[in-house]
Amino acid sequence: MADPFFKPVSGMEMPRFAGIPTFMRLPSVPLDHPRIGDVQIGLVGLPWDGSVTNRPGPRHGPRQLRDYSTMIRAQHPVSGLRPFEAANCADLGDVGPNPVDQDDTMARFATFYAELKSRNIRPLTGGGDHLCTLPVLRGLAKDAPLGLVHFDSHTDLFAAYFGSKTLTHGNPFRSAVEEGLLDPKRMIQIGIRGTQYDRSDFDFAKANGIRIVTIEEFFARGIPDVMAEAREIVDDKPTYMSYDIDFIDPSVAPGTGTPEWGGPNAFQAMQVVRECDGLNIVAGDLVEVSPPFDPSGNTAWLGVSLMFEMLCVMVAAL
Amino acid sequence: MADPFFKPVSGMEMPRFAGIPTFMRLPSVPLDHPRIGDVQIGLVGLPWDGSVTNRPGPRHGPRQLRDYSTMIRAQHPVSGLRPFEAANCADLGDVGPNPVDQDDTMARFATFYAELKSRNIRPLTGGGDHLCTLPVLRGLAKDAPLGLVHFDSHTDLFAAYFGSKTLTHGNPFRSAVEEGLLDPKRMIQIGIRGTQYDRSDFDFAKANGIRIVTIEEFFARGIPDVMAEAREIVDDKPTYMSYDIDFIDPSVAPGTGTPEWGGPNAFQAMQVVRECDGLNIVAGDLVEVSPPFDPSGNTAWLGVSLMFEMLCVMVAAL
Amino acid sequence: MADPFFKPVSGMEMPRFAGIPTFMRLPSVPLDHPRIGDVQIGLVGLPWDGSVTNRPGPRHGPRQLRDYSTMIRAQHPVSGLRPFEAANCADLGDVGPNPVDQDDTMARFATFYAELKSRNIRPLTGGGDHLCTLPVLRGLAKDAPLGLVHFDSHTDLFAAYFGSKTLTHGNPFRSAVEEGLLDPKRMIQIGIRGTQYDRSDFDFAKANGIRIVTIEEFFARGIPDVMAEAREIVDDKPTYMSYDIDFIDPSVAPGTGTPEWGGPNAFQAMQVVRECDGLNIVAGDLVEVSPPFDPSGNTAWLGVSLMFEMLCVMVAAL
Amino acid sequence: MADPFFKPVSGMEMPRFAGIPTFMRLPSVPLDHPRIGDVQIGLVGLPWDGSVTNRPGPRHGPRQLRDYSTMIRAQHPVSGLRPFEAANCADLGDVGPNPVDQDDTMARFATFYAELKSRNIRPLTGGGDHLCTLPVLRGLAKDAPLGLVHFDSHTDLFAAYFGSKTLTHGNPFRSAVEEGLLDPKRMIQIGIRGTQYDRSDFDFAKANGIRIVTIEEFFARGIPDVMAEAREIVDDKPTYMSYDIDFIDPSVAPGTGTPEWGGPNAFQAMQVVRECDGLNIVAGDLVEVSPPFDPSGNTAWLGVSLMFEMLCVMVAAL
Amino acid sequence: MADPFFKPVSGMEMPRFAGIPTFMRLPSVPLDHPRIGDVQIGLVGLPWDGSVTNRPGPRHGPRQLRDYSTMIRAQHPVSGLRPFEAANCADLGDVGPNPVDQDDTMARFATFYAELKSRNIRPLTGGGDHLCTLPVLRGLAKDAPLGLVHFDSHTDLFAAYFGSKTLTHGNPFRSAVEEGLLDPKRMIQIGIRGTQYDRSDFDFAKANGIRIVTIEEFFARGIPDVMAEAREIVDDKPTYMSYDIDFIDPSVAPGTGTPEWGGPNAFQAMQVVRECDGLNIVAGDLVEVSPPFDPSGNTAWLGVSLMFEMLCVMVAAL
Amino acid sequence: MADPFFKPVSGMEMPRFAGIPTFMRLPSVPLDHPRIGDVQIGLVGLPWDGSVTNRPGPRHGPRQLRDYSTMIRAQHPVSGLRPFEAANCADLGDVGPNPVDQDDTMARFATFYAELKSRNIRPLTGGGDHLCTLPVLRGLAKDAPLGLVHFDSHTDLFAAYFGSKTLTHGNPFRSAVEEGLLDPKRMIQIGIRGTQYDRSDFDFAKANGIRIVTIEEFFARGIPDVMAEAREIVDDKPTYMSYDIDFIDPSVAPGTGTPEWGGPNAFQAMQVVRECDGLNIVAGDLVEVSPPFDPSGNTAWLGVSLMFEMLCVMVAAL
Repeated sequence: MADPFFKPVSGMEMPRFAGIPTFMRLPSVPLDHPRIGDVQIGLVGLPWDGSVTNRPGPRHGPRQLRDYSTMIRAQHPVSGLRPFEAANCADLGDVGPNPVDQDDTMARFATFYAELKSRNIRPLTGGGDHLCTLPVLRGLAKDAPLGLVHFDSHTDLFAAYFGSKTLTHGNPFRSAVEEGLLDPKRMIQIGIRGTQYDRSDFDFAKANGIRIVTIEEFFARGIPDVMAEAREIVDDKPTYMSYDIDFIDPSVAPGTGTPEWGGPNAFQAMQVVRECDGLNIVAGDLVEVSPPFDPSGNTAWLGVSLMFEMLCVMVAAL
Repeated sequence: MADPFFKPVSGMEMPRFAGIPTFMRLPSVPLDHPRIGDVQIGLVGLPWDGSVTNRPGPRHGPRQLRDYSTMIRAQHPVSGLRPFEAANCADLGDVGPNPVDQDDTMARFATFYAELKSRNIRPLTGGGDHLCTLPVLRGLAKDAPLGLVHFDSHTDLFAAYFGSKTLTHGNPFRSAVEEGLLDPKRMIQIGIRGTQYDRSDFDFAKANGIRIVTIEEFFARGIPDVMAEAREIVDDKPTYMSYDIDFIDPSVAPGTGTPEWGGPNAFQAMQVVRECDGLNIVAGDLVEVSPPFDPSGNTAWLGVSLMFEMLCVMVAAL
Repeated sequence: MADPFFKPVSGMEMPRFAGIPTFMRLPSVPLDHPRIGDVQIGLVGLPWDGSVTNRPGPRHGPRQLRDYSTMIRAQHPVSGLRPFEAANCADLGDVGPNPVDQDDTMARFATFYAELKSRNIRPLTGGGDHLCTLPVLRGLAKDAPLGLVHFDSHTDLFAAYFGSKTLTHGNPFRSAVEEGLLDPKRMIQIGIRGTQYDRSDFDFAKANGIRIVTIEEFFARGIPDVMAEAREIVDDKPTYMSYDIDFIDPSVAPGTGTPEWGGPNAFQAMQVVRECDGLNIVAGDLVEVSPPFDPSGNTAWLGVSLMFEMLCVMVAAL
Repeated sequence: MADPFFKPVSGMEMPRFAGIPTFMRLPSVPLDHPRIGDVQIGLVGLPWDGSVTNRPGPRHGPRQLRDYSTMIRAQHPVSGLRPFEAANCADLGDVGPNPVDQDDTMARFATFYAELKSRNIRPLTGGGDHLCTLPVLRGLAKDAPLGLVHFDSHTDLFAAYFGSKTLTHGNPFRSAVEEGLLDPKRMIQIGIRGTQYDRSDFDFAKANGIRIVTIEEFFARGIPDVMAEAREIVDDKPTYMSYDIDFIDPSVAPGTGTPEWGGPNAFQAMQVVRECDGLNIVAGDLVEVSPPFDPSGNTAWLGVSLMFEMLCVMVAAL
Repeated sequence: MADPFFKPVSGMEMPRFAGIPTFMRLPSVPLDHPRIGDVQIGLVGLPWDGSVTNRPGPRHGPRQLRDYSTMIRAQHPVSGLRPFEAANCADLGDVGPNPVDQDDTMARFATFYAELKSRNIRPLTGGGDHLCTLPVLRGLAKDAPLGLVHFDSHTDLFAAYFGSKTLTHGNPFRSAVEEGLLDPKRMIQIGIRGTQYDRSDFDFAKANGIRIVTIEEFFARGIPDVMAEAREIVDDKPTYMSYDIDFIDPSVAPGTGTPEWGGPNAFQAMQVVRECDGLNIVAGDLVEVSPPFDPSGNTAWLGVSLMFEMLCVMVAAL
Repeated sequence: MADPFFKPVSGMEMPRFAGIPTFMRLPSVPLDHPRIGDVQIGLVGLPWDGSVTNRPGPRHGPRQLRDYSTMIRAQHPVSGLRPFEAANCADLGDVGPNPVDQDDTMARFATFYAELKSRNIRPLTGGGDHLCTLPVLRGLAKDAPLGLVHFDSHTDLFAAYFGSKTLTHGNPFRSAVEEGLLDPKRMIQIGIRGTQYDRSDFDFAKANGIRIVTIEEFFARGIPDVMAEAREIVDDKPTYMSYDIDFIDPSVAPGTGTPEWGGPNAFQAMQVVRECDGLNIVAGDLVEVSPPFDPSGNTAWLGVSLMFEMLCVMVAAL
């Protein structure tokens, strides 16, 4: 049973539209807070979008995710799990980026996650663009590569951009493999689609043993079958879950920078996470929510609903 | 054959974007109109949202539903029914709420519907928040409880709010059962989902014999099977249909106050109503359309498209 | 292999959000351009909406389609086809309408397409309202009627409007049949739905042998089965593909003038085009994208994604 | 004192967001209504935008003007006039256009206004694009030309368009002068600005004695001085007031088709009408409100606030 | 010099788009916080809109005001005052309303402000609708009536609504006078305009000695002259400042429920507060910001910029 | 008289909403175009926003500026100048940035402008964030420092950011002075306002002789007086004009990243440029237009209207 300190504010005391919005109305516990030592799962914001190659905006993601997260209630509707009672969860705040310096920012992020690692706090991150995953992994997986369940419409396995080997949101996973942060044999990427520059990402995947499930295969086989394979691939060893909101169809999640048509609907988007229940998910992220391209706010509301699903899986894995 | 007086304005005479917008371009027939005695089905607006516990807006629902309703044409595409020729339908106008007094408003609404009941006019209501259903039932069902087919992502069966037994849009159906307006054995609630405060609503349902179909069961069994059960439950006795627009996935119907992800799409949203054809639906409502949260206007357009589906079922039941 | 002149600007040289937006970043080759003689497939904009009977806006379609088209990359994700390497494609610009004169506009359009016909350039058009299809066919099919694969929620086979036989976006296909531009026996219309004025369009179809597939039949049979029938109907003779964006569900493509609920999702919207691979598609259009009714821009992004699918089919048919 | 029949619905009985929206909550009195004979001032909608040469949308103007008009209260804040008590005002509805036929539409409009003329009903019109003013004048001024107070950023005095003498929203006043409907010596156009094609409109004005006040002159002299000249020009003979919403700065009234920067603010926009108090304004219009280009709805709210100002001037002139 | 604990987060450490948004990035100090005893000025949110008679939304005001407040920097551009160094300021959080019970909510609010009064914390409130001012005054002014500088387009001095003496956002100041919370002789209301129901509010003002400055007088005399009179009226005794965002023109502040055209621009909106420098302003509020009616977010950004101006006046008055 | 090749497309041939949008419908003349040698004034887009410290978006500025620029006509309304006949103007396209590398991007931009300099093409640039001005000046002013007329709400004279001397959009003018690209004695910055971090920018200005006109001084003295001083300061030597859209009030130009309240309106925004007529303006830019924060598109329309004003000044200076 979680410490009462970590109980979210109830909608019966403070209506859900009211109050300073922390993630899921959890207590705000920055690294220098006296209760930091008791946190088991920390929700973190990475407000950075300096690595996008198309439309910007995810720097505004964490704040809008927090805003909508106050509509999350205490209990999972299917499993009945009450995650905030089962584990000490807290909002650790945002890690401050340097908006005009990618290298400085990546270093700040990695340092923060290394600190979490040293404190045994399991992080659930709200992005930010997809390059954010790289410094998270640098902080968490320096010593032992993790497995990966990756939902996305892009592989993010590209090599170069603009003629140099610059880091962008198009290559975090290639870098992570090359840096030994991820075990390519325990990686699965699901939902890949959209027009392509070339096949260099597929070639890299093949050469390294990364499993790619295109959206056509995904729909043809169905969720249970695909996710059973995913469970087999990542096994019961420590695994990271990275969820790019552009995995989902743009009609459902328009607020993102490089949308690709033909993705799953919201029910399917939640189902794939639920099917990870029982896996050893030690950390996760939900990235690429771009509020300026989302007139209704729906994308952030879906994003944080998925973070709740991921949190339940992470709590179960504690 | 309906009286020509009740014929809607044709799009061939007045284009659909033109004219003062009544519901489905029907004649405006307030209670003091000389032709009120000939109305069989009355479309009514209840512009009230003072009972919402989250985001407001449904007070603006009836007007926007009317606005989009001018795109409705004369004939059902599948059954071929021409409802405005089969029955005398009219727009009875809005019932004026007292925007700062819930009790006064509930009394005004109940009085209006009792008047309709006494005149044998069957009402189809555009809300308004979901508490509006309660005064409608108080007007219609004082003498004999009705059955209920209820589409929603929430059960609206909660007991208390903020520590007191205040009426909110979270408890109309509990109140209606307790007041004897609905027969709990003839109630089915379909589409329930989303994170939960607790299970007190499910407990109340179980204790009273109300059937709840979660969205997981709904998708697993399919519409024909679920709706066959619904038909069995409500039987051929007088039944009310209450349709909360948040039954539908937020990607399809974003304009509502407490959206929950993972609902049906638009085709399914219409199918469930069509599957009620032949039931003894004596009244219905479409509630919780909130225009301020709907940048495109789609939600009202879907809402009034569903009202047309409901109208066709009600006409068939005359 | 296409002439290097016709290579689109690469996202690696000029980011996708940058540059003057031509269709798919192809070279701008108006009719008086020295390289016009080498064009095999010409992308054309018809910025006209003077024939709509409900909400206007498609006059702004071509520009927004071009804007979003810069997110299209070089290669088809399933077939691997690289259309811009397989054929000489170019943006031929818009044909200037006379915004206040339908007859003058129709004549300008027909003249332009007759010129393309005489030059053996196969056109892929971005509309514009659906009446635009008529002058395109007048330019292309004067000598020999074409077959038609038509995706839409409306048949556009109506006779009169406002009491006279005025041309509107509700009757291009009736006119095309009557003018001998389309062979009704080789016509299929898919996705028809929505409330109806009457059945005069269905009667015309029946009398002329036009095949109509309602959305109910479409979902019941599934895409492969329906499209197999479509392939049989149009045979391997020259065929036109006309794609009204309102074929798709309004939750996916809200930016259009007469949306009807219950249509296909984005994956299905692309699948139906892919299933036309191998057909002798000699020209096509994507019409009724109305930017003023599309807060997110999604409709244009989907529209031009479908134009890419159509382009790939047209390239394969060369 | 006005007949009680013509009293608007009070916000104390039916809140301002509720009820079927007629202009200023006045009774709906179409031409065939038994009380039509008692109407002194009739509010009319002309939902037409087929004559615009740039962005469409004003066909949706009348409905949105009505929607926002329910926020108008009973009394003028400066003069204290209660117009609905001083005269019998009513909403005469929209005149149905033929959306695809300008000539037919112009004839329908002119016939309607000739009918009003014959009944001594003074019309206040909500457009619609600016060509609508021409058929209004054809209905009202066939026998005796009127004077004109005209607020606009454009003169609308151009001759030809696209090489022919087509009627567009760029030339209603030239046509009206040429047809003898307006007395050019009693015409003043105020607020003219924006980049220009050429000076042919200024030349026409000069040749005919029409007074043009550019925005630079307007601001330099101030409203009282300019409006004093206006009063002198139109004298106390019957005068028409035509108000194009694009007279106002686009920051205040963005919802219009051809906005020009550097116009008056809202206070000034109302002041110019108030300065017409005492003039013999026998009819007026407010045109070019285009809801699809107005994300906030502000433009319609300002438009109908100006219609109230115009109405007060017209009531005083009875 | 303020205690370093109360220093806002710097934009040089955490970019302004990042971090959990408290008011002006001040520390979050709820009433039970150990440092509450050191707070001199407390920023408070009152998320309530149950008293509006027209469009809802201000319940969402406090959160959006906080969101935009992170763009406020350390120093006033004209006076050079650095308020966060001159006084201990903190974000005291929102006071939780009961969304469906006005009486309960008013009691909760009054209790909270009485507590602040007892602790000598001067409150600056972000609303919420204008009825919120009444419980604030009940908490602060029970013992001694305050003076009032009031910026608004409405007097909010009305008596009854819907036939009873219900409290609404149209009567807080009448109630406050009747309850002895405000000294009517020391009250000035500035900016009054818009169409009127009647003159009962002006009559009440006259009978009680309240000074009303209409917008016409405001513009005619100019800000320095009007504000000199305001200073004279409220004298140097304790005074409350109440700022309704609808004081400002709707083109500048569209996000509000009952906008009236013809108000001041943003520069003037700030000037009137700056002209209060030196007055004994002991508390203030900024109310009626309604995010759902504000597509750009501008209204909240202006609202919180005005709160900063008010804060500087309050700091100077310490 | 300009070469006919450089004549913009007329709205009488191709309506203003139609056609591929180049700047002001001028011919597209990239650097490798045969006619590049005849260009006198080149319009250029710099789609870069990687240097903003707050909200992103200006990378989308050039495309939206081009889109709205098709509403610009041939002639200036006050001076009567027809700039496209007086000089050979052309759209030189965008300079491709490297979206994830500020240094690479700055180098690409500087190289491009050095090339223009060597060809005697005077550039008018549409940004992009304000750091873009620095590489423009590096390309143009390496040999001889320019004077500067600068409209902005910020001085952009700050030194460091995030603890290092990184280049951001907050310091281009400090860098330009330090690099000898601008003559500080011939610099004037007009419109400065908004809350401040500190006074280090004012100190730098004072130390170097840069003239700062705050918005308070600007409004107090009036435009003619301020601009007379500006003319005196920059003298008749070569001068650059830099126009940050946030100079203008956010109610008029909401689409920008760091808006500050209390700026000029649109008429004043144009007046300040017109008052520069006769100055030796050899180049200019309009920066910080951020489409994602501009729901109506107004900001781009104003931006490009100002570019037309600047162009007229530049043409007169040839």
